[in-house]
Amino acid sequence: MPPAALALAVSLGDPAGVGPELLASAWLSRVPRRLPVFFALGGAGLLRAAARTRGLDLPVRVIADPAQAQGCFDAALPVLDCGDAAYAPGKPARAGAELALASLTEATRLAVSGAASGVVTGPIAKALLAEVGFHHPGQTEFVADACGIAPEDAVMMLAAPSLRTVPLTVHIPLSAVPGAIGIELILRRARIAVAALTRDFGIARPRLAVAALNPHAGEAGRMGSEEAEIIAPAIARLQAEGIAATGPHPADALFTPRARGGYDLALCMYHDQALIPLKTLDFDAGVNVTLGLPIVRTSPDHGTAFAIAGRGSADPGATIAALRLAGECAARRAAARVLA
Amino acid sequence: MPPAALALAVSLGDPAGVGPELLASAWLSRVPRRLPVFFALGGAGLLRAAARTRGLDLPVRVIADPAQAQGCFDAALPVLDCGDAAYAPGKPARAGAELALASLTEATRLAVSGAASGVVTGPIAKALLAEVGFHHPGQTEFVADACGIAPEDAVMMLAAPSLRTVPLTVHIPLSAVPGAIGIELILRRARIAVAALTRDFGIARPRLAVAALNPHAGEAGRMGSEEAEIIAPAIARLQAEGIAATGPHPADALFTPRARGGYDLALCMYHDQALIPLKTLDFDAGVNVTLGLPIVRTSPDHGTAFAIAGRGSADPGATIAALRLAGECAARRAAARVLA
Repeated sequence: MPPAALALAVSLGDPAGVGPELLASAWLSRVPRRLPVFFALGGAGLLRAAARTRGLDLPVRVIADPAQAQGCFDAALPVLDCGDAAYAPGKPARAGAELALASLTEATRLAVSGAASGVVTGPIAKALLAEVGFHHPGQTEFVADACGIAPEDAVMMLAAPSLRTVPLTVHIPLSAVPGAIGIELILRRARIAVAALTRDFGIARPRLAVAALNPHAGEAGRMGSEEAEIIAPAIARLQAEGIAATGPHPADALFTPRARGGYDLALCMYHDQALIPLKTLDFDAGVNVTLGLPIVRTSPDHGTAFAIAGRGSADPGATIAALRLAGECAARRAAARVLA
Repeated sequence: MPPAALALAVSLGDPAGVGPELLASAWLSRVPRRLPVFFALGGAGLLRAAARTRGLDLPVRVIADPAQAQGCFDAALPVLDCGDAAYAPGKPARAGAELALASLTEATRLAVSGAASGVVTGPIAKALLAEVGFHHPGQTEFVADACGIAPEDAVMMLAAPSLRTVPLTVHIPLSAVPGAIGIELILRRARIAVAALTRDFGIARPRLAVAALNPHAGEAGRMGSEEAEIIAPAIARLQAEGIAATGPHPADALFTPRARGGYDLALCMYHDQALIPLKTLDFDAGVNVTLGLPIVRTSPDHGTAFAIAGRGSADPGATIAALRLAGECAARRAAARVLA
């Protein structure tokens, strides 16, 4: 008998944020949205309470092993216990941060061990988590560390229905961006991204559009030299390696419907250059995917939204999209293993 | 008898670019698109030749005075002669640049003198124009100079169906942006923009959303200090003056449908921050409006597009939008003069 198909491990995120209610909402839409099988790490009581604030009755089944998720997912949201907390939406507290950290740690561990097909992480509040022993800049670095991957080789990609982007630099001041971009960094990120799009997204020869840093792509050096000195040489090297890279493209014209038809991924120079078009086009459906890891990891691309937690207005679209995308990537990896 | 209503003066732009064919195309759609009366400066033969490349037969009427435009606009595109050129799409040349400069100079002069209700400028190639005596960074500065307005008081606004943005800084390298923004600059631009939205756009109390410079609006200083040191104090001063200003808003979340419903104008810190969302949402309908001038001035927000000139594929949407918007602003000014 073949082993049971693996399920996705899902961390709760901060229990005072929108994570638990969106997870409950996602499970309730599992049939029409064709979601892959997943289970939550902890929070059985919390999840039921969060669902009630949206007028939803959430059946929960506590499981003892990830392998049991498959058997009960149709009837109830499987929860592998790793703690619980009182539900106090909009009121983050130390006990909640401890649960969030335990949930993230355990979900990641199960994906790394091979007991789960991947990990989907709920939104956390970094400052609160830091107070209970979380010493990474964000969940991406935490997951990379758990995989034994250097943080610079864990590449953040934002994926939405209309667009995929990778920001070359992320959480640094805008004034630090020009000094942080470089040929080697572009090469490293681009190679990881292209390999991941092939392996996890099934794109045989990914087309990479590289954005310029300066307005009008520097207009032949009149408004900045990074295009000529850094970005164009990096693109030439990628092309020499056989990667279908183009650019540097003026960033303002890179996200029109016609331009988007010409590439599979836009490599952007800084956070807002990658995030403005993505959120403008697909605000409630953005998924944060970590490329370059031995495991599949996705996350809804929004924060804890403490201000609207428990009010029923948070949109589950990004959580649903994160679950679906993780399921698709995991299925491609599983199929590749069978063929290998 | 009341004086004849004034018409808009339209410059050709570079005759080798898409300007002439789009102007011809716009005139041919004057009835369904309800365009205001306008006339071209020069290029009677050129315009007819450009129209023919799109399979269009353009009737042209050479007029001797702007006041004659109103009488013939229904039947033909009025052209006030200031020269002509052979039509060679995609092949910019010195004679064409001279015609473009003459057309721009004369169209602007007529708006400044009051003989035209405003000026709509076609797309030029700055480098070519510089060779024939154009000594301004762009048409905005040229028009401001002709009006006797300091260039820093001529505010570029991008207007499209979904969004209006003003970039605080424009054609400078990204590395120069943090050093170029300042409290006084924000105040100056914001005051001009708010006054213009009231006078020319009929918005009684314009709501101004001010974008942050850094990712996550600096996240309480962890990713940059400009929000706390420059942007927030400027917003506080605007609010103290009675201006409905909010922010600094994280730029990536400022252009979602819900966020856009909360303001009339987004004041952005740099070129691509203002242009990425605008072109992503409304690529073929963006209008460049110069605020703060004694005259009305708009322009389609695209370049000469030499590569596609004469091929019939250039979209007249932005030219049509620029003509309509100039007509609306001019009508509001005329109505205000009647009431005054």
